[in-house]
Amino acid sequence: MLRLRRHHYPDHHRRILLRLFHHSTFHPQPLDLPLCHPTYQIWSANTSLGKTLVSAGLSSSFLLSPASSANKKFVYLKPIQTGYPHDSDSRFLFTKLPSLSLRRKFPSSLILSNSILFSSLFAAKSFLSSRDLPFQPEKFNSEMYDLNFREENRISGEEDSSVSELVCKTLFAWEEAVSPHLAAERESGGVVGDSKVIETLGKCLRDGLESEIERGKREILCIVETAGGVASPGPSGSLQCDLPFRLPGILVGDGRLGGISGTISAYESLKLRGYDVVAVVFEDHGLVNEVPLMSYLRNRVPVLVLPPLPQDSSNDLMEWFDESHNVFDSLKNIMLLAYSERIQRLCDMPKRAGELFWWPFTQHKLVPEEAVTVIDSRCGENFSVYQDQKNKFIGQQFDACASWWTQGPDATLQIELARDMGYTAARFGHVMFPENVYEPALECAELLLQGVGKGWASRAYFSDNGSTAIEIALKMAFRKFSFDHDVLVDFLGKDTTEKCVELKVLALKGSYHGDTLGAMEAQAPSPYTGFLQQPWYSGRGLFLDPPTVFMYNSKWILSLPELLYSEIVEHKDIMVRHCSTVVHAAGGMHMVDPLFQRILVKECQNHKIPVIFDEVFTGFWRLGVETTADLLGCVPDIACYGKLLTGGVIPLAATLATNAVFDSFVGDSKLKALLHGHSYSAHALGCAAAAKSIKWFKDPQTNHNIIPERRILRELWDLDLIQQISSHRTVQRVVALGTLCAIELQAAGCNAGYGSLYAASLLKKLREDGVYMRPLGNVIYLMCGPCSSPEVCSQLLLKLYQRLEEFDKVEEKLKSC
Amino acid sequence: MLRLRRHHYPDHHRRILLRLFHHSTFHPQPLDLPLCHPTYQIWSANTSLGKTLVSAGLSSSFLLSPASSANKKFVYLKPIQTGYPHDSDSRFLFTKLPSLSLRRKFPSSLILSNSILFSSLFAAKSFLSSRDLPFQPEKFNSEMYDLNFREENRISGEEDSSVSELVCKTLFAWEEAVSPHLAAERESGGVVGDSKVIETLGKCLRDGLESEIERGKREILCIVETAGGVASPGPSGSLQCDLPFRLPGILVGDGRLGGISGTISAYESLKLRGYDVVAVVFEDHGLVNEVPLMSYLRNRVPVLVLPPLPQDSSNDLMEWFDESHNVFDSLKNIMLLAYSERIQRLCDMPKRAGELFWWPFTQHKLVPEEAVTVIDSRCGENFSVYQDQKNKFIGQQFDACASWWTQGPDATLQIELARDMGYTAARFGHVMFPENVYEPALECAELLLQGVGKGWASRAYFSDNGSTAIEIALKMAFRKFSFDHDVLVDFLGKDTTEKCVELKVLALKGSYHGDTLGAMEAQAPSPYTGFLQQPWYSGRGLFLDPPTVFMYNSKWILSLPELLYSEIVEHKDIMVRHCSTVVHAAGGMHMVDPLFQRILVKECQNHKIPVIFDEVFTGFWRLGVETTADLLGCVPDIACYGKLLTGGVIPLAATLATNAVFDSFVGDSKLKALLHGHSYSAHALGCAAAAKSIKWFKDPQTNHNIIPERRILRELWDLDLIQQISSHRTVQRVVALGTLCAIELQAAGCNAGYGSLYAASLLKKLREDGVYMRPLGNVIYLMCGPCSSPEVCSQLLLKLYQRLEEFDKVEEKLKSC
Repeated sequence: MLRLRRHHYPDHHRRILLRLFHHSTFHPQPLDLPLCHPTYQIWSANTSLGKTLVSAGLSSSFLLSPASSANKKFVYLKPIQTGYPHDSDSRFLFTKLPSLSLRRKFPSSLILSNSILFSSLFAAKSFLSSRDLPFQPEKFNSEMYDLNFREENRISGEEDSSVSELVCKTLFAWEEAVSPHLAAERESGGVVGDSKVIETLGKCLRDGLESEIERGKREILCIVETAGGVASPGPSGSLQCDLPFRLPGILVGDGRLGGISGTISAYESLKLRGYDVVAVVFEDHGLVNEVPLMSYLRNRVPVLVLPPLPQDSSNDLMEWFDESHNVFDSLKNIMLLAYSERIQRLCDMPKRAGELFWWPFTQHKLVPEEAVTVIDSRCGENFSVYQDQKNKFIGQQFDACASWWTQGPDATLQIELARDMGYTAARFGHVMFPENVYEPALECAELLLQGVGKGWASRAYFSDNGSTAIEIALKMAFRKFSFDHDVLVDFLGKDTTEKCVELKVLALKGSYHGDTLGAMEAQAPSPYTGFLQQPWYSGRGLFLDPPTVFMYNSKWILSLPELLYSEIVEHKDIMVRHCSTVVHAAGGMHMVDPLFQRILVKECQNHKIPVIFDEVFTGFWRLGVETTADLLGCVPDIACYGKLLTGGVIPLAATLATNAVFDSFVGDSKLKALLHGHSYSAHALGCAAAAKSIKWFKDPQTNHNIIPERRILRELWDLDLIQQISSHRTVQRVVALGTLCAIELQAAGCNAGYGSLYAASLLKKLREDGVYMRPLGNVIYLMCGPCSSPEVCSQLLLKLYQRLEEFDKVEEKLKSC
Repeated sequence: MLRLRRHHYPDHHRRILLRLFHHSTFHPQPLDLPLCHPTYQIWSANTSLGKTLVSAGLSSSFLLSPASSANKKFVYLKPIQTGYPHDSDSRFLFTKLPSLSLRRKFPSSLILSNSILFSSLFAAKSFLSSRDLPFQPEKFNSEMYDLNFREENRISGEEDSSVSELVCKTLFAWEEAVSPHLAAERESGGVVGDSKVIETLGKCLRDGLESEIERGKREILCIVETAGGVASPGPSGSLQCDLPFRLPGILVGDGRLGGISGTISAYESLKLRGYDVVAVVFEDHGLVNEVPLMSYLRNRVPVLVLPPLPQDSSNDLMEWFDESHNVFDSLKNIMLLAYSERIQRLCDMPKRAGELFWWPFTQHKLVPEEAVTVIDSRCGENFSVYQDQKNKFIGQQFDACASWWTQGPDATLQIELARDMGYTAARFGHVMFPENVYEPALECAELLLQGVGKGWASRAYFSDNGSTAIEIALKMAFRKFSFDHDVLVDFLGKDTTEKCVELKVLALKGSYHGDTLGAMEAQAPSPYTGFLQQPWYSGRGLFLDPPTVFMYNSKWILSLPELLYSEIVEHKDIMVRHCSTVVHAAGGMHMVDPLFQRILVKECQNHKIPVIFDEVFTGFWRLGVETTADLLGCVPDIACYGKLLTGGVIPLAATLATNAVFDSFVGDSKLKALLHGHSYSAHALGCAAAAKSIKWFKDPQTNHNIIPERRILRELWDLDLIQQISSHRTVQRVVALGTLCAIELQAAGCNAGYGSLYAASLLKKLREDGVYMRPLGNVIYLMCGPCSSPEVCSQLLLKLYQRLEEFDKVEEKLKSC
């Protein structure tokens, strides 16, 4: 950063500002949002484009239209106001609407109120002195002054039986008419955090709603008006569009010269944060800006044009509002229609899903319509779920199964990835890989080989998912083994389908490596492999029963299978070694003894049996280290990566190999090359996501859980809580490592095993607590991301513990019946 | 669109504008760009933020810095200028630099020139009269006046031995000081198309360069200054950021109130079009806007602050330029460094790729460093390829292998998909699928079942690629067959690994269905299936030799295998029918007789043998129809889709099935469900891309090739040209259907077959013509997208024909030797 001179702005402020922004990576939890009536956010392409005029116009159209049957309520919320009390957008509505009501001869009564909740000390003093109110020091909490002032007005109409209501609220106000982050830094005693703003807004959105719903059918429209442009910083310095509201929006565009560009860019910034915009509206400046905007939007989003404002700033705008009346009616109708369409769609989704989807690993007969989760969006580790019990709302659930163990991003990384996905799609789309090179693929390969492959791997082979990565790894291992053991006499160009020998894998019981046939053949018989599922499965391996490790009753236990050693010694087949590293995930979250693994790996390598590490689940910090080779203290010949590789946004897999493995495919004939590939090999979007995520997770600047000197994650699961859970009478075993905390419930008979529904009632309760979990039979687990905070993890453990207590009581009762 | 009143702007203009924008979907071909010196685009977050001041500052820093060894050339290009001749940015530089040169006591000589190439009639008349030059009607071509005026200036320095040069050019100018699209519509006789602008700019970028390079080491910096904001429309109505330049950029930000938001949004609009921005620079307005900007950019892009401009508009800015000198030096150094780093990276990429990648289907020994293609970006159907022969430049190549048959988007759809990918990643990231529903997955399933699955399919099963879609299809077919033929006696919950019967597929020789073991087992022995590649392959099918259809010597030929019928009748195994539809792609682009296919399908269905259509290659308009079921006149029980499904941006696959197939998995036990899945099943990005692409390809508004009433694509390959090629003496067979035109070259012995390198020399020549093809042994093919224009296809055929002529002569010569 180079800056020659600074004007107006003292240096110490600048330092404080820099510090503020340095620490603004924390993302607050998203809000529960009511959906029982429409709520819209009003955005703007720039400052001073008339957001408040649009809000006022909408309020008059909604409340005062003659056709309306009154008994309506318009809620206007202004979370952030600067220039206060001179400028107060909520007061503008509060004072304009009575005049408009009289002018329109609105027949019903109208109740109006305007509140201000919190303000800076400066703004509070200005406000109080202008109203001759006393300053009360106890209302200042070192950040903001708790003004909590409310004014009211009532216009009696001819038909006094029906009453409409305008509720205006300013949530936080500062005195200086500058950007909120500057005003907050100058005027507030401390920083008003995003969480405070979000909590207060949430409270206002829900305010009085329960009684409203009880009272019945009052039609409500709610508007949340932002400050400045879409990407203007709020008081904490976070950009307003980065706060996790995701309400549908109206964009107030720019009708001036240059306004087409500003409007389009603002729209794109909203889209890049997952916002839906239902209409664009702007003031006419005679430049017909609506034509290029409509063309850009391909008529998917309506564009409305407001008449030019009078030049005279003392004009009371009554005529302008008259002229604009039709436009605001249209805008209001668009908003009401979009709301009802959205609700209709959300309501229909479970039924449609049940009719059209064929979910994997799901017995459709066991999933009634009401059990289907409608996910409106995701924000970092949280799902926003549409819920319709009693009142419609969007609730938050922590994705504790990490969406099949793929998820890693916090909310900040998610938005970074979104921008990268947009950039990469625009720059590369997808580009064919063989014999080509392009930046995302090269950077991804470099990061893989410098990271998880460091010290042993020299080549990266890309595919689409863990299962294909395993199939590729097996083909590599077969070739390497054949090469080392002279299985293939004539290697050069001879295309023989004749089987010279029978190759098998040496693998562990309970392991799982994917669902394509080759990957299945490398795993021991299980519910996944029967004739019912894949009649071609035969199980081409020697499957060992490994020793496992777990916590029970606050102690770590090593469990040794009896037949272990005799099994190995007796077997004579040719083998390729193949193992999951450290944790068997789909097989029930068993932690295999690392010492056993290390010895087995060394023995295999001594016999020139190539070793494959399946790190699809375990790689990239899932178990607290970037690669489990660090935990085992040995390296493989081949390793497979997927899931968290891309941070969890998009499918990509990689099979890494040593140079010796690669060499067994080098020769003069194309037929000696590895003839395996998928259309989207090393696709640019996947590689770009992987490159960003690999760097993000291991950088202490972006991942506060990293202990750089030890290249591990700090402990995310509180040891006391884990011990407490491991000692609970419902619990058989606990494995807590890295981002994973797995719990096997005590179960017997049909309650145990993969097909068991034993945990269903427990998990249903946890969803009510905002924790989205899925069972593996009687094994349940919590999984967070590499950047998740230990505080969040502790909250999850506490909720789980409480529900285990309940579960225990119910089970006891059932047994006693 | 609702608009109450229109001011200033007459109705007929508005109609013309609307028409203009309605037709602005055509995307011009991207440019060949020289890379032998740095060239930057100057963008701006809004109008009037000082782009030209930045250009001028850069020119003075580059040309006049005392440390510089003179003999430098600064090229300033202003493609679009409005307000001309009163406003002329190129003239601003031309007149400012001499004053700055004198003030700085620049020791060397300086040659300056300023040109204007084309202008509107109004601007030309103004300009000519101001210079007392005659108007020459013959220079007006009904669109623009060919002014072609040049002025020069020379400042003699003390050291006359070295000479520096400033070249300023305005390419197109209009008189009115409004947005170019308005000025062009009002002043030009017709529309100045994007192609005209791009061609002219390309010419200016290359102008004099060959002699420069020959002359030796003159250091050059070139600046292309845009007009208005990043997304301001150009004269054709296309947004400037949508033109396919993709030069690295400097963004001139906004230091005013609201400017943080505008700058961030403008930056995001550039990223969403694949642009790299190397620095942000803006004028200080005392609001410390650089702090939030630096925070947002995470210090990846430097932010520079210029001192405030003097308020007095008559100020000659000399002092301001002095004050800004250090900032412009820094900016220039950033630009020069970014350029040299980029070139270094592009140069190193082939070597790095050869060291780290393991390309699929590639014998690395046969790919020398110089054969590696460095792809800098893709734009619609074209690659932008870095080339280093003689002079460095970015050249354009048509991706005629459609990047392994995945590609469909034109440049417009690519940018739409980029925005959708950004939105979807921000809104959903990835969300676990089973028992859940979210909009992209639901919309995608609806479109699949209403489109390719219409009339037969009732369920969509998602996976990641064609190979996994086939594995899933096989599992479905096995179950359905077992169900229909009472193979499984006890279906309920019994987990048996015992094989009751041997299930096989009935498939066609030469077919290919993917590289995972299950998919491989369903194809006949081939170079892909030998022990060398997959020792576990056994070929679990009965493989028929089908009749094929092709054009030879301008006639369609039906080729019948001899043993066809006896083969079928004799076989007694239990079977699941499995076929590629219409074209065997990887097997050498053979077109199977549709009548044969239809009869086989009907026979199988009569015997309750489930039929799978492998439409991974053939689906979604690849063969001119959305589904080849339309070509065959029959429907399957199960069908697989991939590749073009997402428009070619991201991996996703779908297996569709009838309700009867689905029903054979419904029961009371989870173990009866289809226990196959991948982590990213129905991932949101893939589903969103698919939903957009499916709609885009079939909508006549967006795909001009669609003949709606017949639900087919118009002929893309010119029949005369195809016949001519099919009659060429080097050609054995031609198959041209939909987006595919395959040609088998006459070849014998080791020149024939998959491993052959016979076509290599021919394809190398075609790359020089800007056509990127890849061979399947001695079979070569051209593949375009569903939206490609027939004109582009004809150009490809012509280039191919010319190279075949050459190839023939060389081959003849070789034979005669």
